[in-house]
Amino acid sequence: MGNRVTAKIDEKVQFVMEQYLRMLIHCGLPAQDIDLIYCKGPVMNEIMVKGDSRMCLFTGSQHVAEKLCTDLKGKIKLEDAGFDWKILGPDPAEIDYNVWQCDQDAYAFTGQKCSAQSMLFVHENWAAPEIDIVGRLAEQAGKRNVEDMTLGPVLTWSNDAIAAHQEAVLSIPGAELAFGGKPIDPSTHQIPECYGSYEPTAVRVPMKSLLDSQEHFDIATTELFGPFQIIVEYKEGEIDDVLKVIDTMPNHLTAGIVSNDIQFVNHCLANTINGTQYAGIRAKTTAAPQQHWFGPSGDPRAAGIHTAEAIKLVWSSHREIIYDWGPVGSDWKGVQS
Amino acid sequence: MGNRVTAKIDEKVQFVMEQYLRMLIHCGLPAQDIDLIYCKGPVMNEIMVKGDSRMCLFTGSQHVAEKLCTDLKGKIKLEDAGFDWKILGPDPAEIDYNVWQCDQDAYAFTGQKCSAQSMLFVHENWAAPEIDIVGRLAEQAGKRNVEDMTLGPVLTWSNDAIAAHQEAVLSIPGAELAFGGKPIDPSTHQIPECYGSYEPTAVRVPMKSLLDSQEHFDIATTELFGPFQIIVEYKEGEIDDVLKVIDTMPNHLTAGIVSNDIQFVNHCLANTINGTQYAGIRAKTTAAPQQHWFGPSGDPRAAGIHTAEAIKLVWSSHREIIYDWGPVGSDWKGVQS
Amino acid sequence: MGNRVTAKIDEKVQFVMEQYLRMLIHCGLPAQDIDLIYCKGPVMNEIMVKGDSRMCLFTGSQHVAEKLCTDLKGKIKLEDAGFDWKILGPDPAEIDYNVWQCDQDAYAFTGQKCSAQSMLFVHENWAAPEIDIVGRLAEQAGKRNVEDMTLGPVLTWSNDAIAAHQEAVLSIPGAELAFGGKPIDPSTHQIPECYGSYEPTAVRVPMKSLLDSQEHFDIATTELFGPFQIIVEYKEGEIDDVLKVIDTMPNHLTAGIVSNDIQFVNHCLANTINGTQYAGIRAKTTAAPQQHWFGPSGDPRAAGIHTAEAIKLVWSSHREIIYDWGPVGSDWKGVQS
Amino acid sequence: MGNRVTAKIDEKVQFVMEQYLRMLIHCGLPAQDIDLIYCKGPVMNEIMVKGDSRMCLFTGSQHVAEKLCTDLKGKIKLEDAGFDWKILGPDPAEIDYNVWQCDQDAYAFTGQKCSAQSMLFVHENWAAPEIDIVGRLAEQAGKRNVEDMTLGPVLTWSNDAIAAHQEAVLSIPGAELAFGGKPIDPSTHQIPECYGSYEPTAVRVPMKSLLDSQEHFDIATTELFGPFQIIVEYKEGEIDDVLKVIDTMPNHLTAGIVSNDIQFVNHCLANTINGTQYAGIRAKTTAAPQQHWFGPSGDPRAAGIHTAEAIKLVWSSHREIIYDWGPVGSDWKGVQS
Repeated sequence: MGNRVTAKIDEKVQFVMEQYLRMLIHCGLPAQDIDLIYCKGPVMNEIMVKGDSRMCLFTGSQHVAEKLCTDLKGKIKLEDAGFDWKILGPDPAEIDYNVWQCDQDAYAFTGQKCSAQSMLFVHENWAAPEIDIVGRLAEQAGKRNVEDMTLGPVLTWSNDAIAAHQEAVLSIPGAELAFGGKPIDPSTHQIPECYGSYEPTAVRVPMKSLLDSQEHFDIATTELFGPFQIIVEYKEGEIDDVLKVIDTMPNHLTAGIVSNDIQFVNHCLANTINGTQYAGIRAKTTAAPQQHWFGPSGDPRAAGIHTAEAIKLVWSSHREIIYDWGPVGSDWKGVQS
Repeated sequence: MGNRVTAKIDEKVQFVMEQYLRMLIHCGLPAQDIDLIYCKGPVMNEIMVKGDSRMCLFTGSQHVAEKLCTDLKGKIKLEDAGFDWKILGPDPAEIDYNVWQCDQDAYAFTGQKCSAQSMLFVHENWAAPEIDIVGRLAEQAGKRNVEDMTLGPVLTWSNDAIAAHQEAVLSIPGAELAFGGKPIDPSTHQIPECYGSYEPTAVRVPMKSLLDSQEHFDIATTELFGPFQIIVEYKEGEIDDVLKVIDTMPNHLTAGIVSNDIQFVNHCLANTINGTQYAGIRAKTTAAPQQHWFGPSGDPRAAGIHTAEAIKLVWSSHREIIYDWGPVGSDWKGVQS
Repeated sequence: MGNRVTAKIDEKVQFVMEQYLRMLIHCGLPAQDIDLIYCKGPVMNEIMVKGDSRMCLFTGSQHVAEKLCTDLKGKIKLEDAGFDWKILGPDPAEIDYNVWQCDQDAYAFTGQKCSAQSMLFVHENWAAPEIDIVGRLAEQAGKRNVEDMTLGPVLTWSNDAIAAHQEAVLSIPGAELAFGGKPIDPSTHQIPECYGSYEPTAVRVPMKSLLDSQEHFDIATTELFGPFQIIVEYKEGEIDDVLKVIDTMPNHLTAGIVSNDIQFVNHCLANTINGTQYAGIRAKTTAAPQQHWFGPSGDPRAAGIHTAEAIKLVWSSHREIIYDWGPVGSDWKGVQS
Repeated sequence: MGNRVTAKIDEKVQFVMEQYLRMLIHCGLPAQDIDLIYCKGPVMNEIMVKGDSRMCLFTGSQHVAEKLCTDLKGKIKLEDAGFDWKILGPDPAEIDYNVWQCDQDAYAFTGQKCSAQSMLFVHENWAAPEIDIVGRLAEQAGKRNVEDMTLGPVLTWSNDAIAAHQEAVLSIPGAELAFGGKPIDPSTHQIPECYGSYEPTAVRVPMKSLLDSQEHFDIATTELFGPFQIIVEYKEGEIDDVLKVIDTMPNHLTAGIVSNDIQFVNHCLANTINGTQYAGIRAKTTAAPQQHWFGPSGDPRAAGIHTAEAIKLVWSSHREIIYDWGPVGSDWKGVQS
């Protein structure tokens, strides 16, 4: 849009952006079109406040987001936090494709995407023995390994932290491990211990437990930025319970609704408010960085990226210019009011 | 847009909105589509904070606006404050029309519009004796009177307060009264003393005084919500000084650029950032409530009203729904990543 | 769009337009904004050719349309002829609604709409005894009568002509009368004999007969501008035969595809080219005068009415105006080429 | 737009398109996406008529265009013929730039563009001695030569034909040669005699002669597809005569209106109807192949190229699909009509 931005990236991954910028400049980007700063958050915060920042597009933790909204007096656009869900509807179809898509959504990039699938609602028809979506997903996820880079280090959660969260989830009444659940065999990789190295993992939690206890709900809906998801089965006639669970979640980033049943799809879309929602028998939860609108519907601070619409809404501002060249009509009479 | 809003109006003029709503309901508006509350600001503030307001469109003082931005964590759209200007360019034309328009912009509704003209920049060609725009404007404004309701009470500024501000402006070096400058003859009206009743008034201030002293600038650019404007003459070649004065103003609501010279118009448009700008030989500063975009370009909190574009940007929120019904191609092969 | 048009209406119904225009003028339409002419087609043809008509929006017979295309050298927009179909898909739902909609589509306005339903393709699931869509449709159509004006005169087909066409259709191998098939009881109405007065009628024709014989196909797909439709049943797996029949029809005005099955709907939409197509479990074939785009996809002469898009495409013309006010850059160097 | 087209190019320049297509295929264009045919016009005509061509985008002579409109029954989009004009308005500015632009518009590509400038209307202020736009243009055009390829062969007009047309124009009362007017010195080039090789030429014609005689008008407005233009001076107050001359021309492809005076520009735009019009102090007449809309406003057969809008309007066709999934409301009651 022509703005000169200052980019501040998390220190752990800053070097990726730096190399990317060097490549852009090599390809012809005028070096003065963007500034890159390497610093911790509080330093950037002070720069923005003292520098009277006109606009900030922030992605990161909710805690910092809240602080920035106040510090910048609302001159900000935010990404919602990412506890993203997918619903498998009552009409299983394109089974192989959906096994592949579910595995990608939850475990690609070792689950470290804000739009990664954190909770999978499975209609009983997908759980039937002849389909056994969870079994197939276990098989597909089981093919992942460090050698071919379908698995990698978890940057912000250690194995101990992952295991502790897994234990907490398993303590919910009726919860049980679906697959994974332990560190990757250390003989197969050289991931340093300061990073997590965990198998693609899924834990089943009964929907009843989510509905009955706020405490269990809070544990189950804590985002683990790694290869970890919750699986919740539901029966025919229980879709409104599923939607009630979803409505209770505080954040609404991305979502998927997998079905060919247009009435089912419309019912789910009409009762949810995620910023980016995929619908249809091939629905995904994550396609970043395409078509990404952050935050729930109705929040004026919601940000978006990558589409022309999103870039226009976030990085430009409406300005109304009305030209009136006349001429004044020969029959014009000015009436004073 | 389908939202159910709660409207809170300034206590002094609330009854107008109440009567308007009663008329809407009489005409068929479902009574539950809008709530109207009669209260002072702090009460409304508490309602919004405790009620977790999703969005607030605020028009009012900058002081309250700043507080609301923090209290509502940025879930707000704002109107910029209204110290609005018009530039008469180097090529006088449509003289009668512009006399009429300038009078309307400054004094219609007794000057009590957020978009009323507060400062008029007059190119020396418009000041030449054969045109004498200020003299003609004085004559036109002099026709206003209470009886035919082209003048009325000033709700928020008493005569004493107006006179005091006028004195302050006149104390700027080189300032002089252009016309008006005193209360309306009391024998011609029954406006209560608690309201202002003042003649349409204009004070000339030299541009040099605005450029040389921040204190003089601050006095001259204080918004008086009544029939009062500042007139600043400039000479050929001084347009960039005019734009420097404008750029120093903290607020950027509406503006007018009166000229047939497209190069002049484009130069002024390119160097100013008002939310709503009228350009061309018939440019105005106020046309509320049509085509009104509030606030300067580039502020993500800027609000707008009345146009389809403004209503969409303020009262709705982008939501991205991506349908993918497939079908899956016969040659599809899932590659794990 | 600001054009001053000359309207020529079929002589039989001209008085309706005349009265309508008188009403418009009464309501404020400037009388010089439209001209109305009362004449036969050849007279209008000569006016347009000699008057160098800029554009003609024509609805009427294919024969005249072809002549006009040549006479006016293509300065024309056309409505396609109306032999319109509806497909009831494999998943019956909203039965009562669809019975009502099918009756409306075929017999409302006594079947005299260009978009009236002329052929109904019925999936065997809709023909099953517990649904019996044709039986229910017979019952619903049977409620029509002249007294409450749900039936009326047929302006362009006499009873003899209707009966003759019905005989021709019944002579197709396997064809049989579904319901109706005879004139309205003369004791119940006073419709003059020069007009048709016929019961809502449907004739079943086997799909095989349509596919096997061009002659049978031509008879069955002749448009009867009155309360008459063909019913064609098809079995699971035969949808591509249905689409082959449709593709063979020369005209492609409106159509309906009734199903909740998005894959079925998409398959039918992808393989048909009607100008206006309704899709979904509540699909209709006729909703004139809303959302009406005439003619098949891909014909540059296709016309449309009523939507902003249609009016823009038919009654305006793109004009490209490129403003270039410069200014010329200080580093500009003209290179001659 | 996804259509598979058959391209037929004039035989003289076909090899350019063939080489271009070979390059496209080399770059990855699927070879089956376009067909190229090498033939004369009558052969192509027969292919289109017998092949039931759905759409034809034709650029070429008006004679063939008229025939095709009839043969193809209007399934065609046309380019208007190119006798293109430019008006230099009453306010000379950016003189050097406009000299350069006028030379480019008339003589670049040796004048062989459908959008080349054929008639230049010069306001007396541009003709004043201190500006002498025609003298400067003569000087600029005089720099053209075969060696640096700023001049080249004229493919469709021989030197004899050009000279004959020049004589005809010079026979108009008051006409005189402005510059050029003879073949390029043969010692400076090797252009074969079957092609034209002519100096950039301009002939002045008085406006009065164009207004007084249809015969003179017809001669002066004959398109010469080469480096040849007519210059017409006009005085202050005569712009409406200029517009009358322009309105009399049968074709309306491109045009330029050179002025900073917005009232003058708007008056000219409001009274002309060219398909592509450039306006402003830097207006050109030719910028092919950018922003090119063919034909006058209001002709439904007008074609365009290169912009997204033009490609959509010419190569696609509106199709209206209305989805209605319901569901049917619980309070629905079917009323028969």
